[in-house]
Amino acid sequence: MDKFFSAKHVAIIGVSRDTRKVGHVIFRNFVDEGFRGKFYVVNNTADAILGHPAYKSVLDVPARLDLAIVAVPAEASIQVVDECGRKGIKNVIIVTAGYREEGNMELDKRLEETLKKWKIRCVGPNCLGTFDAYTKLDTLFLPRYRLRRPPEGRLSFVCQSGAVGSSILDLATSQGYGFSKFVSYGNAMNTDESDLIEYLGKDSKTKVICLYIEGAVSGKKFLKTCRAVTRRKPIVALKGGRTEEGSKAAISHTGSLAGSADVYSAVFRQAGVLEVFSLEEMFEVAKVLEKAQKPAGNRIMAITNGGGYGILSTDAIVQNGMKLASLSGVSRERVRKELPRVHTENPMDLLGDASTEGYKTALDIAVNDKNVDVVLLIILYQTPLVTPEIVDIVVEYNDMKKKPIVVVSAGGEFTEVLKQNLESNGIPNYTYPENAIRAVRRLVEY
Amino acid sequence: MDKFFSAKHVAIIGVSRDTRKVGHVIFRNFVDEGFRGKFYVVNNTADAILGHPAYKSVLDVPARLDLAIVAVPAEASIQVVDECGRKGIKNVIIVTAGYREEGNMELDKRLEETLKKWKIRCVGPNCLGTFDAYTKLDTLFLPRYRLRRPPEGRLSFVCQSGAVGSSILDLATSQGYGFSKFVSYGNAMNTDESDLIEYLGKDSKTKVICLYIEGAVSGKKFLKTCRAVTRRKPIVALKGGRTEEGSKAAISHTGSLAGSADVYSAVFRQAGVLEVFSLEEMFEVAKVLEKAQKPAGNRIMAITNGGGYGILSTDAIVQNGMKLASLSGVSRERVRKELPRVHTENPMDLLGDASTEGYKTALDIAVNDKNVDVVLLIILYQTPLVTPEIVDIVVEYNDMKKKPIVVVSAGGEFTEVLKQNLESNGIPNYTYPENAIRAVRRLVEY
Repeated sequence: MDKFFSAKHVAIIGVSRDTRKVGHVIFRNFVDEGFRGKFYVVNNTADAILGHPAYKSVLDVPARLDLAIVAVPAEASIQVVDECGRKGIKNVIIVTAGYREEGNMELDKRLEETLKKWKIRCVGPNCLGTFDAYTKLDTLFLPRYRLRRPPEGRLSFVCQSGAVGSSILDLATSQGYGFSKFVSYGNAMNTDESDLIEYLGKDSKTKVICLYIEGAVSGKKFLKTCRAVTRRKPIVALKGGRTEEGSKAAISHTGSLAGSADVYSAVFRQAGVLEVFSLEEMFEVAKVLEKAQKPAGNRIMAITNGGGYGILSTDAIVQNGMKLASLSGVSRERVRKELPRVHTENPMDLLGDASTEGYKTALDIAVNDKNVDVVLLIILYQTPLVTPEIVDIVVEYNDMKKKPIVVVSAGGEFTEVLKQNLESNGIPNYTYPENAIRAVRRLVEY
Repeated sequence: MDKFFSAKHVAIIGVSRDTRKVGHVIFRNFVDEGFRGKFYVVNNTADAILGHPAYKSVLDVPARLDLAIVAVPAEASIQVVDECGRKGIKNVIIVTAGYREEGNMELDKRLEETLKKWKIRCVGPNCLGTFDAYTKLDTLFLPRYRLRRPPEGRLSFVCQSGAVGSSILDLATSQGYGFSKFVSYGNAMNTDESDLIEYLGKDSKTKVICLYIEGAVSGKKFLKTCRAVTRRKPIVALKGGRTEEGSKAAISHTGSLAGSADVYSAVFRQAGVLEVFSLEEMFEVAKVLEKAQKPAGNRIMAITNGGGYGILSTDAIVQNGMKLASLSGVSRERVRKELPRVHTENPMDLLGDASTEGYKTALDIAVNDKNVDVVLLIILYQTPLVTPEIVDIVVEYNDMKKKPIVVVSAGGEFTEVLKQNLESNGIPNYTYPENAIRAVRRLVEY
């Protein structure tokens, strides 16, 4: 499985001269993006593509290969895969479409048999394939000016739908998320979501696995795999086709027998998988799992310089089944002495003229209180007494690793700069208190 | 009431030389932002501030005044307001804090009596005051580098909490929302949310009223006012303090007797107010109400180039109690002939290689079908065959005003540019299908 992401000798089969064609776009990923291994161009009509020698067949490549990327038309793919087998290649990514999903069952069967004959592991067909932010192996055939590739990180994303996967990868990148691996596995001919999840479970660079799934190839295998993996790292899953109508649409999309939403929810629960209910929630939950430490319990302490935010956060904490932390006697005494203008202890409202120093005191009280499990820090950067140095203070307290700290800030450019600063120092930031609390709930649950 | 937003002769009382002080920041708003009227600086110790002559008292200002902004300390405010009365000013905005909300009941009473004596209408005290994007009257005492001011638009925002109001105004501005008027009314001494809503109901520049409220000053007045206003324009309301715990926090915040969430929900329903449950939802709903035309019913037609998005949208449509539109016979015939690769009619999946031309055909079918009430257009701009010209086509169909069109696109910079293009042409855009559908539901309900 590792070769799908970390192969060092890769053949790209079907590299067209036409810059808009799938094979060409993949080729350009290898040329432009600093792929860490060697790659070989296969094209049965050209001698060279943009200065790279082209081989008529993979059999002509003068090197041992550990991965082939197949981007030839479906009819030609059988012969190409057979040649891969003869070459001794054990991993192929077939991005080509036109098999069972278009009713070509005969072709589908022949491809399956060819793969079986040579014991080749295959991602696809009918998929976007894989992306690895570390090795720069990248079969996403969407141009980089339209779809930005994410930086190195610790999220991995297994996505049945290529469109959901690629657009969300693009969006998440623009929001500052880092990734380890991405895979869109299409028809799952002999590699399904469970195989990929199992592999990512062992991948040291993956801390959180995100999954968009319409239907599991094997429910039993899925349950067994996820149960084992979630002991080591969290899986966040979004199920497409939760309603009867959505489920019908899924059948036409990926041929998935989607199964009832309740069954999936039960499987997720049994397997320790954190189920989410929207694309937005998926990455919000993944972020807190990736960045924040595990809390001891569900008692949340809210600190704010905006009273309304404290109230909305309180509502959300209660509505998500968590508790408002009740400060210890020692902490209450400190609040009275050191923050005399603060009336309520949770949410601790530092008032509109709160200073960076006031935040430091409040943070110090909260992270040292045994009755507090999670600190929800609401910082509205609009007020002048909140100086940019607050970033250093929050980072300092977060680095003590006493309690998970989650920050909420809503605003424009000035706010964004400071938020991104905190994010890049490993602190999860959210725009809306309701969304932050929804994510924290999953952190507590895991 | 109009003077709070459109006054032409304004005194700013309490303009300090200290650039960090509230009065100075307000003064700078008038200097820097192109206020359309005349303003006069009042400062009892200086002769001039940054070249602007300063008057010792409002009584010394050599002009008739229709608004005074009061930014002196609470103790000095009584005399200042009394002088405003003697000067014949009938509207004051008192941003100063330190009255009942800090337990100073005696001062509070004296201020109230002084206002009554001179029949002065007051916004505040203890508030951020008002902002008008058209007249540039702007009492928000938060520096513009931290809090961007929005461009002219048709949303108005009444916000009990200054922090919620200002941070969300800043955020909404960075997201491209335009505003007419903003008001944070603080202690609501003699002008409350109902007065402001009533005024905005008659304001021709306000198309949608957003409201963040912890507790209404008078429930009866609120119900009566909203009922009348919602006949003319929508009100979108978020209630802070929906839980018992949140409600307790609200009492300490604005002294609001928050009342049970159920009571508020019932009042909102009776008054035709659209209740939302998060800050994020508030502006997502406001956007669709501002931009989209009223649909004839709740039958949604989804068009997509990403199958997974079609499925998630279908789930969301059903879960929000709306219907998947069922195409007419004529339309089905057109799909078969003109879009032969499309298998399912709703969601209409144009597939990953959908072109701009394909979208045009699908749009043409949808907007001309009598069985369709709303068109949900999912456009993933990552694929090369979706050319930027799609913006012109969507605008063209939207301008026909046959059906409301709502667009969903997730992605990075490339996507953002095209989304903003559609937005500025009056088409509501969303990142996530679930959020778009949640907003469309309110458009249908209103």
